[in-house]
Amino acid sequence: MEGRKIIGIMGPGEGATTADIDAAFEVGQLMAESGYLVLTGGRASGVMEAAMKGAKSAGGTTIGILPSEDGADQSEYVDIPIKTGMGSARNNINVLTSDTIIGIGVDAGTISEIALAIKANKLVLLLNWTESSKAFFENIETAKLTFFNNPDELINYIQASEK
Amino acid sequence: MEGRKIIGIMGPGEGATTADIDAAFEVGQLMAESGYLVLTGGRASGVMEAAMKGAKSAGGTTIGILPSEDGADQSEYVDIPIKTGMGSARNNINVLTSDTIIGIGVDAGTISEIALAIKANKLVLLLNWTESSKAFFENIETAKLTFFNNPDELINYIQASEK
Amino acid sequence: MEGRKIIGIMGPGEGATTADIDAAFEVGQLMAESGYLVLTGGRASGVMEAAMKGAKSAGGTTIGILPSEDGADQSEYVDIPIKTGMGSARNNINVLTSDTIIGIGVDAGTISEIALAIKANKLVLLLNWTESSKAFFENIETAKLTFFNNPDELINYIQASEK
Amino acid sequence: MEGRKIIGIMGPGEGATTADIDAAFEVGQLMAESGYLVLTGGRASGVMEAAMKGAKSAGGTTIGILPSEDGADQSEYVDIPIKTGMGSARNNINVLTSDTIIGIGVDAGTISEIALAIKANKLVLLLNWTESSKAFFENIETAKLTFFNNPDELINYIQASEK
Repeated sequence: MEGRKIIGIMGPGEGATTADIDAAFEVGQLMAESGYLVLTGGRASGVMEAAMKGAKSAGGTTIGILPSEDGADQSEYVDIPIKTGMGSARNNINVLTSDTIIGIGVDAGTISEIALAIKANKLVLLLNWTESSKAFFENIETAKLTFFNNPDELINYIQASEK
Repeated sequence: MEGRKIIGIMGPGEGATTADIDAAFEVGQLMAESGYLVLTGGRASGVMEAAMKGAKSAGGTTIGILPSEDGADQSEYVDIPIKTGMGSARNNINVLTSDTIIGIGVDAGTISEIALAIKANKLVLLLNWTESSKAFFENIETAKLTFFNNPDELINYIQASEK
Repeated sequence: MEGRKIIGIMGPGEGATTADIDAAFEVGQLMAESGYLVLTGGRASGVMEAAMKGAKSAGGTTIGILPSEDGADQSEYVDIPIKTGMGSARNNINVLTSDTIIGIGVDAGTISEIALAIKANKLVLLLNWTESSKAFFENIETAKLTFFNNPDELINYIQASEK
Repeated sequence: MEGRKIIGIMGPGEGATTADIDAAFEVGQLMAESGYLVLTGGRASGVMEAAMKGAKSAGGTTIGILPSEDGADQSEYVDIPIKTGMGSARNNINVLTSDTIIGIGVDAGTISEIALAIKANKLVLLLNWTESSKAFFENIETAKLTFFNNPDELINYIQASEK
């Protein structure tokens, strides 16, 4: 487990679309196959749960940074539950702990994480984003954001960037 | 001081434009004149400092929720410095503590606060936002966001909403 | 309000003794009369509430650093409610924000705050402590802790230390 | 990794005694051999580092809940570094995330964690504590604290309590 990089996969919980959930499963699976630890917000919902389910299907290890203090909200696909008891303030821990952040889909919580990731100077990779959403974030910061059209493109990019 | 409402004024620090700073001063002043406590991220920079300077010019009281643990980053216009030692995780405290959030201008930190405010179901009032930025957030959540063209419009709206 | 020092008054909530509550009221009152802002954990219970009630009886201003995210646990004697949504992790904010910490009585939460205050290198003044409790903390750190037998002694000490 | 329990091992950093460090190594090793994940405050110092070094010597997996936001303080024996950026407020995450807490030796940070663990209603096992320190905490809470004279006694107790 030593020295394995941590990929944070962020996205909508209850409001995730089918496309978001399918992409999250595939990205989680591919990242685990590539040897990354997969980190999410840890709840039993949406992109978080799908990404961890994908990672587990490939024999990977998952980290869930939970908002609750007792793990009541924990997905069954979390291997290592970090119980923060901090609600949405835990979003900053998600970001700081991840070497790279992948955002799949858009909702308020996801936006807060992407914004905090930009502030923390992290590499951010985005999937399932509309043209207008891209335009918005590109006004803020272009250097750290890269948009992708499908999970394979994204994985290829990560693997290429490590060589 | 009992029962006084808290208005959070958020916006860029080092990257604030002159228009952002002028608007922040005016909004801070008008909010203090209207009897509100003015809360910001507390640092000696940009919209935060201008809003508090405006509030102090009208005899108001200011609360600064500081990222540092020792107040090294504190603006001289903070009356009540809350030293969190939590960096950007303190953004969630800014949002939870404010009865209403005003965003002036746009940068990564401000976006994280607006997104957290939407998640916390707070009323959010935005000034100095471009049409494309409006379009982005209106895709996420329309009910809780209102955009204004100048500080007076915004103050009139707040005062009307309290009657 | 500018430049006013913040005194944090910590102690048991539900488990406070009558002696703790009486001392907390008196210390809160005396601190407010001496011009300090009085900070507590903000809940409607025990030493926290009594200290703020005392401060308000003397026309003082109180700050409550609340564990909740919505203020459901807020005492009516809080002027400035800081809603952290962080549960007991907010104890570190109580300590960092206070220029000096007064502990009245002993329970687990209070001990955590005194220990964090020692770690943060703050001046800590303790009232209503048994000899064996004194002995324990004096093993850890002697320079920053001072024990008092009654509220007046404690106030005299603070006032003398500011000259 | 699924379903593996997390043991938090807390104790002095820079101020740890040789006895503390030896015990921490042995407890970390024994806990890893027994199949537990070993959690600490993650820094390259004292009981934290020794416990993780012991766990790694037995092929275990370690979690470090770091105070820093960038991992600058991280021990080389951390497998999974959680970067909180929250300083000592992260002590509450250490406690909430651990199924059981082991305290080895005494300093201010350790006391804050034991106190928070009592508040969070966790099982707390203590090693290398003097009689007077025992007496202090036993005044606060007896049901959740158990004191041990050596690492083997402590391991036997944990293993027996799981049957």
